[in-house]
Amino acid sequence: MEACVAPVVAKPYELHYWPTIQGRGEFVRLALEEAGVAYVDVARTSRGEAKMEALLDDGRSEHVPFAPPFLKAGAMTIGQTANILLFLGERHGLAPSAPAGRLWTHQLQLTIADVVAEAHDTHHPIAPGLYYKDQKREAKRRARHMTDERLPKYLGYLERVLQQNTRGPRHLVGARTTYADLSAFQLIAGLRYAFPHAMARLERKTPALTALAERVAVRPRIAAYLASPRRIAFNEDDIFRHYPELDSGARA
Amino acid sequence: MEACVAPVVAKPYELHYWPTIQGRGEFVRLALEEAGVAYVDVARTSRGEAKMEALLDDGRSEHVPFAPPFLKAGAMTIGQTANILLFLGERHGLAPSAPAGRLWTHQLQLTIADVVAEAHDTHHPIAPGLYYKDQKREAKRRARHMTDERLPKYLGYLERVLQQNTRGPRHLVGARTTYADLSAFQLIAGLRYAFPHAMARLERKTPALTALAERVAVRPRIAAYLASPRRIAFNEDDIFRHYPELDSGARA
Repeated sequence: MEACVAPVVAKPYELHYWPTIQGRGEFVRLALEEAGVAYVDVARTSRGEAKMEALLDDGRSEHVPFAPPFLKAGAMTIGQTANILLFLGERHGLAPSAPAGRLWTHQLQLTIADVVAEAHDTHHPIAPGLYYKDQKREAKRRARHMTDERLPKYLGYLERVLQQNTRGPRHLVGARTTYADLSAFQLIAGLRYAFPHAMARLERKTPALTALAERVAVRPRIAAYLASPRRIAFNEDDIFRHYPELDSGARA
Repeated sequence: MEACVAPVVAKPYELHYWPTIQGRGEFVRLALEEAGVAYVDVARTSRGEAKMEALLDDGRSEHVPFAPPFLKAGAMTIGQTANILLFLGERHGLAPSAPAGRLWTHQLQLTIADVVAEAHDTHHPIAPGLYYKDQKREAKRRARHMTDERLPKYLGYLERVLQQNTRGPRHLVGARTTYADLSAFQLIAGLRYAFPHAMARLERKTPALTALAERVAVRPRIAAYLASPRRIAFNEDDIFRHYPELDSGARA
């Protein structure tokens, strides 16, 4: 896995995340790709996963993260997906610099993070440490509530944010692309993978959100990234998993 | 409910949150109290809950929140608990002003928010919209994993952050009280209420975290707040709920 070279920072960022899933790290990858900055996806390099785990186990480091993803930026180590995006957004113009817009972008990201956590819990409602098969019955109940109640509420909210944007419905924040737009794209992509039948139904009511996701996907740097081997395919070790029995409306 | 008057800002902040629970709003209340700033807990005033709901339903407002809590600060409306704390931390000295410390404080807050969400899901593992009695069996399974696996991991992490703080284990960040310390206090208070037996066992391994919580509780403004009618009692409509059958080690 080579670094993507761009002349913005001297030393490339180091992204530390699980090497075989998109997961929460993908929100960071998308921001790094859109910013066009150099980064190394460390755990996908030789012995990189051991490097990541050594940092997590570091008994002396002051700013030790609870879990991946985390970003090393020079002397700083920054964890928690939304927090990394807050940092990258300020540094690389992926969020407004004025306080109100900066906080609003972050607020939307945190709401998207809530949906992502709930999407994870559809297949792991009891415990992240148990196998899916050992919580499948509970997963079916939870997924049904997700597709019937939670997703309409969350996606309806994002649609409303677009519709109520005084600069028009092409962006979540103002008139420029922010990391919240990139994350909305990833959310829609993941939900479509996990719940294709439910999403086909739900997206009829969220045309502006669907259009936003389509526009992000064809942004030059994002399109190049999605077509590259750097984009890991969705799979059933990931946050968004396609289990037909959890997709409301599918014949399971 | 009267406003707590202090001369820091001209117009008091408006906190909008459910009036009968501590919930996520409590993390904001603690920061406002520690900062000593004037605020109105709007939904606890006459017709205040209707005002809150009108703001949530506002079809024109650009920065509409997904859910309470949200804070009105002059012309700004700020949602998502951690985001509100990011704002208050910067404005009222409840976080370092340098980027590294500011992000680290926020990172810890986001990790605490993850524990809070998991604590909620111990009694609502299937859906927030269902009654506890309708997901009690699943709740027992989830709570067992929470007290046996997740809480040791999370609390052990916070203990380690304290122990690895180069300025000593009295604060999570540097040598001063931040909103992350206040939130750690609230987390421990809530977990003790919900899981007294499990916490009695777990806290033996987290002496620095326990000591931090005790110190926050006796800070003058926090102690005054906790003794006042502004502090709502824990109850079983809240995020932290005491159901003996979910407390590992209790005789349920």
